[in-house]
Amino acid sequence: MLTIDLNCDMGESFGSWRMGMDDQVMPLISSANIACGWHAGDALVMDRTVQLAASRGVAIGAHPGYPDLQGFGRRRLQCTGREVRAYVMYQVGALMAFCTANGVTMAHVKPHGSLYNTAASDEETALAVAEGIAALNPSLLSVGLAGPRGELVVRAGKEFGLRVIREAFPDRAYAADGDLVPRNVPGAVLSDPQEVAQRALMMARDHRVLALDGTMVELHADTLCVHGDNPAAVDLVRSIRSLLQAEGISIVAMGSRP
Amino acid sequence: MLTIDLNCDMGESFGSWRMGMDDQVMPLISSANIACGWHAGDALVMDRTVQLAASRGVAIGAHPGYPDLQGFGRRRLQCTGREVRAYVMYQVGALMAFCTANGVTMAHVKPHGSLYNTAASDEETALAVAEGIAALNPSLLSVGLAGPRGELVVRAGKEFGLRVIREAFPDRAYAADGDLVPRNVPGAVLSDPQEVAQRALMMARDHRVLALDGTMVELHADTLCVHGDNPAAVDLVRSIRSLLQAEGISIVAMGSRP
Amino acid sequence: MLTIDLNCDMGESFGSWRMGMDDQVMPLISSANIACGWHAGDALVMDRTVQLAASRGVAIGAHPGYPDLQGFGRRRLQCTGREVRAYVMYQVGALMAFCTANGVTMAHVKPHGSLYNTAASDEETALAVAEGIAALNPSLLSVGLAGPRGELVVRAGKEFGLRVIREAFPDRAYAADGDLVPRNVPGAVLSDPQEVAQRALMMARDHRVLALDGTMVELHADTLCVHGDNPAAVDLVRSIRSLLQAEGISIVAMGSRP
Amino acid sequence: MLTIDLNCDMGESFGSWRMGMDDQVMPLISSANIACGWHAGDALVMDRTVQLAASRGVAIGAHPGYPDLQGFGRRRLQCTGREVRAYVMYQVGALMAFCTANGVTMAHVKPHGSLYNTAASDEETALAVAEGIAALNPSLLSVGLAGPRGELVVRAGKEFGLRVIREAFPDRAYAADGDLVPRNVPGAVLSDPQEVAQRALMMARDHRVLALDGTMVELHADTLCVHGDNPAAVDLVRSIRSLLQAEGISIVAMGSRP
Repeated sequence: MLTIDLNCDMGESFGSWRMGMDDQVMPLISSANIACGWHAGDALVMDRTVQLAASRGVAIGAHPGYPDLQGFGRRRLQCTGREVRAYVMYQVGALMAFCTANGVTMAHVKPHGSLYNTAASDEETALAVAEGIAALNPSLLSVGLAGPRGELVVRAGKEFGLRVIREAFPDRAYAADGDLVPRNVPGAVLSDPQEVAQRALMMARDHRVLALDGTMVELHADTLCVHGDNPAAVDLVRSIRSLLQAEGISIVAMGSRP
Repeated sequence: MLTIDLNCDMGESFGSWRMGMDDQVMPLISSANIACGWHAGDALVMDRTVQLAASRGVAIGAHPGYPDLQGFGRRRLQCTGREVRAYVMYQVGALMAFCTANGVTMAHVKPHGSLYNTAASDEETALAVAEGIAALNPSLLSVGLAGPRGELVVRAGKEFGLRVIREAFPDRAYAADGDLVPRNVPGAVLSDPQEVAQRALMMARDHRVLALDGTMVELHADTLCVHGDNPAAVDLVRSIRSLLQAEGISIVAMGSRP
Repeated sequence: MLTIDLNCDMGESFGSWRMGMDDQVMPLISSANIACGWHAGDALVMDRTVQLAASRGVAIGAHPGYPDLQGFGRRRLQCTGREVRAYVMYQVGALMAFCTANGVTMAHVKPHGSLYNTAASDEETALAVAEGIAALNPSLLSVGLAGPRGELVVRAGKEFGLRVIREAFPDRAYAADGDLVPRNVPGAVLSDPQEVAQRALMMARDHRVLALDGTMVELHADTLCVHGDNPAAVDLVRSIRSLLQAEGISIVAMGSRP
Repeated sequence: MLTIDLNCDMGESFGSWRMGMDDQVMPLISSANIACGWHAGDALVMDRTVQLAASRGVAIGAHPGYPDLQGFGRRRLQCTGREVRAYVMYQVGALMAFCTANGVTMAHVKPHGSLYNTAASDEETALAVAEGIAALNPSLLSVGLAGPRGELVVRAGKEFGLRVIREAFPDRAYAADGDLVPRNVPGAVLSDPQEVAQRALMMARDHRVLALDGTMVELHADTLCVHGDNPAAVDLVRSIRSLLQAEGISIVAMGSRP
């Protein structure tokens, strides 16, 4: 049976500020990446989000980021490997507390924003993230980019005995080499629910994606990243989910596939 | 055999700022309360301090505080029980990550500064601290004041199945009812190493303390709190330790006594 | 000619988090209280909000709060007078920078949330806020509660040579002594636009308010506080503004009345 | 008459953490760069440090940095020009409040740590810093590196009508092109008081420095940066000051030279 994981960033509210439509998205996904209070989220939000995910049977992952609330973790911060390792451990540990209290086991770790991107291009960062995860629990899954730019994270994961889950983006354009087209390029972000759902299907069923130049590219992804920050984004997740299920593809948490 | 625990707040450096003489104090104590990054400490300091404690065989406790770095957690912040519970869980979880990575088990939780004092006088806070600890691991020891003002914490601990460790302060004056004399009262803080060591001995051996009014008061303490923030404080710990050992009292971690 | 000021808290977005409907509200009010980055707002939001107010001819005030982003400045933080004074100065100074850069003069200072409430009940805080304002510019207006609970702030203002502007809340119930009814009392918050506008009119024209027990109470207010955090709140401001203008009352910034 | 300015970073304590020997250093320097609470310092420390500088007749400058307390502003944070401009304005404005309250005028702005270095190599940052300063007060002096690496800051200052003060480091080795030798190169940092004082004298009197390769390099500096974070550093400042004065060079604030 074909399966795929749908993952989404969750728990990004902070204090009195709301962000995301977690209540609507949670029933549609199989894995939730929960912010850990450094770039988004706070202790109350983390508790509530873990509970929500647990109640829906959604797999829980930590979503650690740079210590930059003001910049939502989207700005690169020059850090040593020792810093990154300790930052990942701190945030994953904090989220683990809420998993323990809610009787669930953490499944994966996916770095957020600029930390995710830096890990894809900077070996010291990639190794530090992997080392931090493995130091806590080597059976935690590590999430990295599918395609050529994910290689550093895969190698770093291997170095520390982690299983790396490869992630693709149905709403993003890809280049002929399997790499993401940068956001500032026209056409880099797709928003038509039918088109995005078709791309998700092709990723999940055929392990391929239609590149921006019209060529068909191989892309082996274990999880598809979706968004839930506005009603249109939620519609898009719904559309992806419907088509995948209609085509007989089960949506199951990233760890479930052997 | 008589035993007592000596506990000290550790890991209170932050970023480029140093605080405390952890290297000198660690060999002298049996339990370290390690700051968790909200009122003091940071991820790198936590990692280093857990390692230092582990290497010396010192029992490790979390030292969670209010989210107030600027005020060092010494200012009361009006929080709901739900907030306190989540704040304790977040911080204890973060420190647990470094315990796991360093192969040691966390032994206790002692709230810091104003959170410690608020728990002693506000039932909602006392219950929330206990609930947060128990939600993570009910075999974690909870630390509270010896004497009448510690009753709220003891009862809150019982409510959630926690063992509460009672703490006394050899360098602080006590009132005839077994309560601490407020710091602003003349004579409230003692600094003579011989005198403080004698008081520690009396606490550990006789379960008594000489009150400010000259009466002898019963005081049942399982752990004595010492300080390590300056050379004089370290001398004082040394003096306490020497006298206790000379009198045949073993200094062992708070959890060790049945 | 009768005049009144309508003031509203503005610039409460932070980083990637949006709060408030500043664009809709700004054209409706005469004074904007702009958050200064400690409980809400950030440097970019402050710059943008000052610009928006200036472009609409709305008077600008600083809205300093406790250093508690997580709690949105709504939780009491035990601070010394020296701390409060310095915190007010820091935040007001920071906002002044954006006033200077945008070619406008700051008109008033209104403490936010718990700092506002604490100043109403704690003399040390009231004096410290006034001292901080006066140290920067004694011609800045200070905003405090109308009614009996505003007396501390009035006296503190006098002590430091400040003119104190008295504030009333058209959408809040009042007790027979002119004090606000606490929010948790049923009926404490009003939401019917017609009713709230009528109360605003009575406050502005008759200097009176109908108390919860049916008695008519004198209340001398120079400014009415309105909210803009959701569409219903904006409708309410619109309703107040329409009725006041229809009744010939000019809506002008708080400093304009001699 | 020959004159030179001695500047030092001051007010870097934070909350309960002490840093620097401000009391000893202040009488020895002519310009103080005061931290503004984002990478170091807090409102109380700023108030105290401005007072201390004012009481000694030392010129006051703002020392804004990246929002990174944990990293002491020493880590590059990827920021847009709009962010840098607003961050500079916020911090300079906050310090201005304490200048106003203490009856002194701010003289200069010197970016801290990584912001200083980024401004030297990234044009967008250099322009944003200059724009932020000029928006507040174009008669504020801007401080940048002497030598070739200072050109971006000089040009950015010109763009916004600022006078740029060039800074040299008597305790740092220079390359033959007038650029600083990176800290990780052996010999990059000098610590012998006699030698450092001699280099300071040569910088102030001859506008030259002996480069690491033995060549004599022209270097036009208006201010010499000194440090005060430990007793040896303070001795070094004393040694510099004594030799300069013995050689008839007056130590006066950076703005004083026409």
